[in-house]
Amino acid sequence: MNDSDLDFAEPAPAEPGEVGLVAPQDYTSDEPFTFDCGRTIPGYTIRYETYGRLNRTGDNAILVCHALSGDHHCAGFHDLTDRKTGWWNNIIGPGKALDTNRYFVLCSNVIGGCQGSTGPLSIDPTTGKAYGINFPIVSIGDMVRAQERWLRAIGVTQLQGVIGGSMGGMQVLEWGITFPPFVRKLLAMATTAREGAQAIAFNEVGRQAILQDPDWQEGNYAAGAGPRVGLAIARMMAHITYLSDASMARKFGRRTVADRPHPSVPESNHAFDVQFEVESYLRYQGKSFINRFDANSYLYITRALDQFDLAERAGSLEAAFAPVTAESLVVGFTSDWLFPPAQNRAIVTALLRAGKGASYAELETDLGHDSFLLESPQLYDLVRDFLAS
Amino acid sequence: MNDSDLDFAEPAPAEPGEVGLVAPQDYTSDEPFTFDCGRTIPGYTIRYETYGRLNRTGDNAILVCHALSGDHHCAGFHDLTDRKTGWWNNIIGPGKALDTNRYFVLCSNVIGGCQGSTGPLSIDPTTGKAYGINFPIVSIGDMVRAQERWLRAIGVTQLQGVIGGSMGGMQVLEWGITFPPFVRKLLAMATTAREGAQAIAFNEVGRQAILQDPDWQEGNYAAGAGPRVGLAIARMMAHITYLSDASMARKFGRRTVADRPHPSVPESNHAFDVQFEVESYLRYQGKSFINRFDANSYLYITRALDQFDLAERAGSLEAAFAPVTAESLVVGFTSDWLFPPAQNRAIVTALLRAGKGASYAELETDLGHDSFLLESPQLYDLVRDFLAS
Repeated sequence: MNDSDLDFAEPAPAEPGEVGLVAPQDYTSDEPFTFDCGRTIPGYTIRYETYGRLNRTGDNAILVCHALSGDHHCAGFHDLTDRKTGWWNNIIGPGKALDTNRYFVLCSNVIGGCQGSTGPLSIDPTTGKAYGINFPIVSIGDMVRAQERWLRAIGVTQLQGVIGGSMGGMQVLEWGITFPPFVRKLLAMATTAREGAQAIAFNEVGRQAILQDPDWQEGNYAAGAGPRVGLAIARMMAHITYLSDASMARKFGRRTVADRPHPSVPESNHAFDVQFEVESYLRYQGKSFINRFDANSYLYITRALDQFDLAERAGSLEAAFAPVTAESLVVGFTSDWLFPPAQNRAIVTALLRAGKGASYAELETDLGHDSFLLESPQLYDLVRDFLAS
Repeated sequence: MNDSDLDFAEPAPAEPGEVGLVAPQDYTSDEPFTFDCGRTIPGYTIRYETYGRLNRTGDNAILVCHALSGDHHCAGFHDLTDRKTGWWNNIIGPGKALDTNRYFVLCSNVIGGCQGSTGPLSIDPTTGKAYGINFPIVSIGDMVRAQERWLRAIGVTQLQGVIGGSMGGMQVLEWGITFPPFVRKLLAMATTAREGAQAIAFNEVGRQAILQDPDWQEGNYAAGAGPRVGLAIARMMAHITYLSDASMARKFGRRTVADRPHPSVPESNHAFDVQFEVESYLRYQGKSFINRFDANSYLYITRALDQFDLAERAGSLEAAFAPVTAESLVVGFTSDWLFPPAQNRAIVTALLRAGKGASYAELETDLGHDSFLLESPQLYDLVRDFLAS
């Protein structure tokens, strides 16, 4: 290479890269933890992952908060043979919107979860048995306070941002209210400051499918056993609420699969076997979920969603936001009918009325509630600009 | 009363009256009936009710077609102690939109149903046992052909109209296509010429809740037994799709009920018991449904809904409507997200393209899919005017 080469060379564009192989870590606190419901456990574990490097002052961290069925594994691979990356890999990595060259990105499994953090599957040290249904009732606030102790313990002194969609967005709001000096920017999307009756109703049907499954065994099922049918039904139904009529029409329409007789139904009459592609898809979603999720956790976490109500506890949403010092960006998606745009917009309206810096963006999409998880250059630009502002 | 009284008296308005006490009747055909799936049964029974009187020429009849969970009892009382009238009592009676002073109004339980018409609960004369899951697959066309034989047998020579919402509307369209000279007017509401993927998906989750309930017993459960849990879950979920986000917000919002410990959960931790009013309502819906509906019928009838596709069988919806001779009115409801206005409008567009007389009305409502069942003077006027035109 000589000088003239350098003169004519464009600066190489920073191609977004991948975080690559990652390994989950555990933080364990031996100090008691008291839940919002008033009950105390002697300690807890938080399973988490990190991407990028924490700087010396401990203040370049961005916390990612996961949704109901998510977990701490939000980017990269655990193993070279993995076929799937973490659930938000498209937004996390070197040069991506959550730029790991710059930020120390973290994500933890929530307390009450079932992917390594303390929850109903964990052993209650006072009895030597799994907590099961005797686990304390969990709130979104509990999730956030459990995260805060962990973050301080590993040397994070300030969060540049907290970001999450759906239940992750609820945690974002709770972060801004509960630990104002600790967090600089709140980025919530496809979320709500409180669910309406319809969202509660769907969660309740899912819980009933679990609670009424004879294999639920009053919540005391053996590890690896449990109400698999009920959990699969809950997941299949919930999955419909994460999509949209339009996206399902495009993805499946009325396309049928080749008829395969249901083994339990006479061959001459197997109309209840899979006939439409959408049925096959939902059955797959149900089956794969029961292999990775705990039914009691599903009960606890959906209850946390339903009970979350910022306005109720402070008198109004505006009053609830009084302590917030962070700047906020809330993103709604036009086709999200689970936590519709109006519920996202209401958060920003209340923040502004409370005199806080907040902005609202609504992205045109027909992918439903799950839009926040899917490839979206528009969303990445919003996130990048907001963090840089 | 003297003459001057008469001079000044306004004509007494014909106050809509009630049909009062009614009794279901049975029609039994001993002739074989062949289903669209190709299978034949040696005969069948149709349970039905009538309101008003058939005229001597047998041509003043109006057929009401019921939806998935409905039945033949659509007006009046069966017993003086009944607390509820038939499901469409608000539209049927002397002086009402379906005026029984003028019309002979009839409604039958569909074939495949479980309220007295031949269906999975019925005894298969060739085996002496209930058909159960060996009942032939039922289509919307089968429902209509079974009705037609019954109507002719009891002396109906022509229908002034066929009217129905949701699955009832599908039967209305099928009537117009299959028996054009027999029916003068088609009145379909909150319906579709074919379900989209989302509607199929909800039905599929309901079916899976039933099929995977261990009490389903491969469909061979004893009378009075069966997959009560699965059927209740299916009903709870489906019920959400019959309402709207707005109507649920108004009816229930986030209102809670007094806490009552769930008997199966320790008192200290009963967060999974009913907490919100909407949960209590849905549990009630589920429980009351399992006392009146058969799970196998639910499988058969939801499958009939999913498989109904007028366009597919004729090449296009326009082509499907070629045989229609009746005038049509289709009514959509703005808040119906199960069979949204666009799907109702598409029916009229296709009828018009096929050169048929058809009109579309869209009623502004926030009551969701069930709008067609609820008190609506606007709807009554539409129905009355259309029948009189």
